[in-house]
Amino acid sequence: MDMQDAKPAVILLSGGLDSATVLAIAKAQGFECHTMAFDYGQRHRSELEASAKLAKQMGAKTHRVMKVDMRHIGGSALTDDKIDVPVGGVGEEIPVTYVPARNTIFLSYGLALAEVIEADDIFIGVNAVDYSGYPDCRPDYIQAYESMANLATKRAIEDHPLKIQTPLIDLTKAEIIQKGIELGVDYSLTVSCYQANEQGEACGVCDSCRLRQQGFKEAGVADPTRYQ
Amino acid sequence: MDMQDAKPAVILLSGGLDSATVLAIAKAQGFECHTMAFDYGQRHRSELEASAKLAKQMGAKTHRVMKVDMRHIGGSALTDDKIDVPVGGVGEEIPVTYVPARNTIFLSYGLALAEVIEADDIFIGVNAVDYSGYPDCRPDYIQAYESMANLATKRAIEDHPLKIQTPLIDLTKAEIIQKGIELGVDYSLTVSCYQANEQGEACGVCDSCRLRQQGFKEAGVADPTRYQ
Repeated sequence: MDMQDAKPAVILLSGGLDSATVLAIAKAQGFECHTMAFDYGQRHRSELEASAKLAKQMGAKTHRVMKVDMRHIGGSALTDDKIDVPVGGVGEEIPVTYVPARNTIFLSYGLALAEVIEADDIFIGVNAVDYSGYPDCRPDYIQAYESMANLATKRAIEDHPLKIQTPLIDLTKAEIIQKGIELGVDYSLTVSCYQANEQGEACGVCDSCRLRQQGFKEAGVADPTRYQ
Repeated sequence: MDMQDAKPAVILLSGGLDSATVLAIAKAQGFECHTMAFDYGQRHRSELEASAKLAKQMGAKTHRVMKVDMRHIGGSALTDDKIDVPVGGVGEEIPVTYVPARNTIFLSYGLALAEVIEADDIFIGVNAVDYSGYPDCRPDYIQAYESMANLATKRAIEDHPLKIQTPLIDLTKAEIIQKGIELGVDYSLTVSCYQANEQGEACGVCDSCRLRQQGFKEAGVADPTRYQ
């Protein structure tokens, strides 16, 4: 496809492994990629630097960091210093690292940007098997969000239906990594750890680190993560 | 109802006529009201002061101002100084004062707060007859948002369904004013004008002013608005 014909798309790019892979997939599909990261007061602020580096290195057309005031609302270990990040292993229940309505807020900013840049696609790296079952990563949630979005904007109701693209939704962590490696993603640039330090080095024991480590192991790929 | 038994509710309170009336209705229904205003870079910033005054005067339990970075996205006369607010009269089409995905973003912050304070109700002052047909004020949009919200949060999926309360949705501007007067709303505190000055004085000619003026006239109520 001629790049002049490339359709714009919004890519939610946290700076983690999943969203970096999503950006590579959208790019491979020929989209002109407009990336969006969120500064929501998260502990692991080095993911924001990772996001900006990835956007640049992977050729995003524009990159935005939106400030989202979650600390003013609270209710999560990721945004409230009084709640510790659990390090005891991935459980069955929704963990305290759950951030209330996070993906709903992120997608809503994505929806606003999509309308302004005349994009009909928003890419998000949710995957149902990941993240200990956060409700706002599940397929039925994404479907409901898309239905709502198609009634929400001037662009959508004027015959430009919006699609929430979730290319990872059926993939395991190992499959995501294999896909990204095929597409040339440099995972050493990504930060997944919930409590990464300022240098972007990972703790190795939070849920997110554990799922990532296991993914590299199962994919048979050397883990490029920098640990503390 | 004993106030100790009052259920918490989130009230989106812009500082305008509609949301002030909604707050009065929620209060009259016995809810413990947690109000939320949005600083989204709007021209009419005096509505934020109006919102804080109304929350205090009407006994809200808490009041928050969330900063929402819409100027970083653009696309509206209300958030882009390069696009003029139209003053020629209310038309049939969606006007340039439309802000992309605004209510979707606002409701999403409301959803996050609702989960944290354990509320099952979010009140919003949309009314289908108002605002020149903004898509995100319509009943089918609100219904779709509610369906999405009920899949989005830990609280909702754990058997606490969320309700988007739209007590104004079938009312004309005149009926809204009559309802508010019955409930003791002081409309002199509210700011509806899209380009109100720093003192909260209205222009009298934008769509929002015109709809408000006509409402007071039809309601047979003296217009307490302060004009420039």
